[in-house]
Amino acid sequence: MAAGPVMSVAEIEAFLDREFPQIHLGGRVYSVEAVGPMTARMRLAADERHLRPGGTVSGPAMMTLADLVLYVAILAQIGPVGLAVTTNLSFNFLRKPEPGDLVAECRLLKLGKRLAVGEASVFSGASPEAVCHATGTYSIPPR
Amino acid sequence: MAAGPVMSVAEIEAFLDREFPQIHLGGRVYSVEAVGPMTARMRLAADERHLRPGGTVSGPAMMTLADLVLYVAILAQIGPVGLAVTTNLSFNFLRKPEPGDLVAECRLLKLGKRLAVGEASVFSGASPEAVCHATGTYSIPPR
Amino acid sequence: MAAGPVMSVAEIEAFLDREFPQIHLGGRVYSVEAVGPMTARMRLAADERHLRPGGTVSGPAMMTLADLVLYVAILAQIGPVGLAVTTNLSFNFLRKPEPGDLVAECRLLKLGKRLAVGEASVFSGASPEAVCHATGTYSIPPR
Amino acid sequence: MAAGPVMSVAEIEAFLDREFPQIHLGGRVYSVEAVGPMTARMRLAADERHLRPGGTVSGPAMMTLADLVLYVAILAQIGPVGLAVTTNLSFNFLRKPEPGDLVAECRLLKLGKRLAVGEASVFSGASPEAVCHATGTYSIPPR
Repeated sequence: MAAGPVMSVAEIEAFLDREFPQIHLGGRVYSVEAVGPMTARMRLAADERHLRPGGTVSGPAMMTLADLVLYVAILAQIGPVGLAVTTNLSFNFLRKPEPGDLVAECRLLKLGKRLAVGEASVFSGASPEAVCHATGTYSIPPR
Repeated sequence: MAAGPVMSVAEIEAFLDREFPQIHLGGRVYSVEAVGPMTARMRLAADERHLRPGGTVSGPAMMTLADLVLYVAILAQIGPVGLAVTTNLSFNFLRKPEPGDLVAECRLLKLGKRLAVGEASVFSGASPEAVCHATGTYSIPPR
Repeated sequence: MAAGPVMSVAEIEAFLDREFPQIHLGGRVYSVEAVGPMTARMRLAADERHLRPGGTVSGPAMMTLADLVLYVAILAQIGPVGLAVTTNLSFNFLRKPEPGDLVAECRLLKLGKRLAVGEASVFSGASPEAVCHATGTYSIPPR
Repeated sequence: MAAGPVMSVAEIEAFLDREFPQIHLGGRVYSVEAVGPMTARMRLAADERHLRPGGTVSGPAMMTLADLVLYVAILAQIGPVGLAVTTNLSFNFLRKPEPGDLVAECRLLKLGKRLAVGEASVFSGASPEAVCHATGTYSIPPR
């Protein structure tokens, strides 16, 4: 089932640039760091837009990154043959992130014909404890 | 329990401007339309930043608006005495929004001493059917 | 979209008896009270099995009832042509129920070809405030 | 933060027997297999009550087990000094379980003064792939 990704990091980034240019409005901040069998890792180079009072990174910035890394993990496994659509996202906000980059790591729990489900953890600074945990469900169009 | 809001729309908007100036970066797009007993309504004047392929409004734009309207509903009931912190958000994405404004309506299901829970529905265009449904839990600091 | 239910309460109860006899093990406690366009209402006649310390009704009893009422609402709309499968359930526990019956009311937020999404509220005693709020997603098999 | 459990498996089982005798009604089916720093593992010896059409184990059986293992993990860390209360549970049902025992493993993502958050995976048969994934939030009373 998890034969490994069919797209490279460079192919995924080119795909995102072409299909989702809006995520780069105001400056490129999202980058794909790695993809693997049922996994992906992305980074948000947080800037002023993503900050909140006290210098912490905003909840929406964490949510956007978690959704994106799960989308990328699915894309990497199935290729750009049909666009997955987010149907459900659930977040637990665990700790306040520090100012600075966020890194999200995810793994797919299921990659079915119609639905994919995964979980993502968002990390901040050097702490091994996640600042946010997410689960997401994506509908995969008929191919 | 639901004696009604203790802050007006104008007071809430002034509070958001002061405490969360970042949400207005790139242009003011969020506005509070109404608050009531355990309820609130907000609008997102979606612009290019919030769009996705096909002209639809992005998932993160809906998530940000839903989180904000729930925060505002709590703020309106308890006043600016301690900042509520989002601990959990769960979203179901139901339909693709049309390009254009999003309106989010929420009601609080519980307003306890330590936790508040609410649900929000996001609407697009003239349709009475929600494009996104959210539930959220917020931790209320000791006062 | 919401043309109304195609099965009556009696037809639904007969279907549940035939397909899910296990829910009646130890005594019949679940009953369908009403179905309507995109809605359903069910009752749990809670007995000793469903109680917890202090006489409150257990979380699993509320979860089971909420899942069942959402399933019934879908069944009522699409008929017994293919069994919907629960893919996601999310619960917020709001208040402790009193000992005694629970009533769950639900409405479907979306009834698509592949996925149905709904929300349910569980009530206890005479209080108009829900003790539990649930959202659920169900996969509908190809017909 | 994760100094390790302060209760043994035997102490936890004795506590559950005393405080939650209802879970053993109809026959003992839940057992605690292990507790560790921020982790726990439990087993459900599924019997006829927990089955559904086709011989699969029911969703409520998986939900009950996941809630219980998260509760046990918290109890093991903080001791029986105040009863944690479930405030939120979210489930993704990934695959149909086989008839037979279910095993749930969990780890706590956060153990704060007021809230604990964890995730649990439920396994069936010999498959390393979870049949159900859960996240839960628990309110910890002031001590």
